[in-house]
Amino acid sequence: MKIYDFTQAPNPRRVRVFLAEKGIQVPYQQVNIATAENRKPEFLKINPMGGLPVLELDDGTHIAESVAICRYFEGQKPDPPLMGVDARDRAIVEMWNRRMEFEIHSMTASAFRNTSEFFKGRIPQVPEYGEICKNAAIKRLEWLDQELANREFIAGSRYSIADITALIGIDFGRVSGIKITPEQKNLQRWHNAVSSRPSAKA
Amino acid sequence: MKIYDFTQAPNPRRVRVFLAEKGIQVPYQQVNIATAENRKPEFLKINPMGGLPVLELDDGTHIAESVAICRYFEGQKPDPPLMGVDARDRAIVEMWNRRMEFEIHSMTASAFRNTSEFFKGRIPQVPEYGEICKNAAIKRLEWLDQELANREFIAGSRYSIADITALIGIDFGRVSGIKITPEQKNLQRWHNAVSSRPSAKA
Repeated sequence: MKIYDFTQAPNPRRVRVFLAEKGIQVPYQQVNIATAENRKPEFLKINPMGGLPVLELDDGTHIAESVAICRYFEGQKPDPPLMGVDARDRAIVEMWNRRMEFEIHSMTASAFRNTSEFFKGRIPQVPEYGEICKNAAIKRLEWLDQELANREFIAGSRYSIADITALIGIDFGRVSGIKITPEQKNLQRWHNAVSSRPSAKA
Repeated sequence: MKIYDFTQAPNPRRVRVFLAEKGIQVPYQQVNIATAENRKPEFLKINPMGGLPVLELDDGTHIAESVAICRYFEGQKPDPPLMGVDARDRAIVEMWNRRMEFEIHSMTASAFRNTSEFFKGRIPQVPEYGEICKNAAIKRLEWLDQELANREFIAGSRYSIADITALIGIDFGRVSGIKITPEQKNLQRWHNAVSSRPSAKA
């Protein structure tokens, strides 16, 4: 078993933090996105979408998509639970994980993809769309600050995959000027708490 | 228990098809997106994102996000399994469902949002970005046709939530000119098969 990883990209970090929380160690093999190693034919056989991370099982199966990889390990080692403990709780965690993905993580990623020097010439950039995503992410941080007024973690009283997605989305926003403001006390309190867990450095 | 629904939108259809496959009946209450009923304060208390569908449980809990709602019912009634049967299979289904979401369903939705008359004045549209999404979706249908050369369904030999997401994403693409071509025989065969299941009319 191994995981194809790239330490500088946000999605691989989601899986590394998840595994650190679970106390699971898996060997990593670096695939350099900066030199487009993930777009070479050899890697496209592993994941035709070209994305990272990818989990390779011992039977040769390749599992791409960060949350699918997390789902695999949640099934293999349910404790500590990071994706909910029963049908209702699993649904609530999934709702919050998706909100963090679509409203924050995807928005910070699209802001970067459409406005950064890094992606110039690599993909068709639309800076106007990147600005819309940036402004949407900033608005969503205001909303999330209010949501966190009455609970400790994103999906309730327990740390979950939704906290991981939010942490990585927000941290990745910094390069595009999307930041928690000093007025957002609840969000700042939450960010300090999840950032100080050992897993955040994974 | 009830589901806030809007029959003309693609995401609510995902849940209706899923429930039809499970043989589960839940009362539906219509919320009119066309008249922006989903943006009114009363509905934003139910789902601050304004999206549909939303499941309301008997204890008053609201679960938004189509896949989170499906996850709830998968836990309540595991048969027939639509989200995998063990850790490895669940991960594979999740990978394929996400590919269908991000590469096809989201692309057809973004093409529509950014180019349609319907969304003019409702959201900041960027037609150039809509065209990029449209072209990406068309390319992804070519890829999916090849993927389906050697298996019956999107995630393997069993019908799953990934087939539902792909069906709804592809069907919704038609209004934006994203269509299966006559040369895409595998995709056409699959589309005929999933469309002829009674659930497709839900």
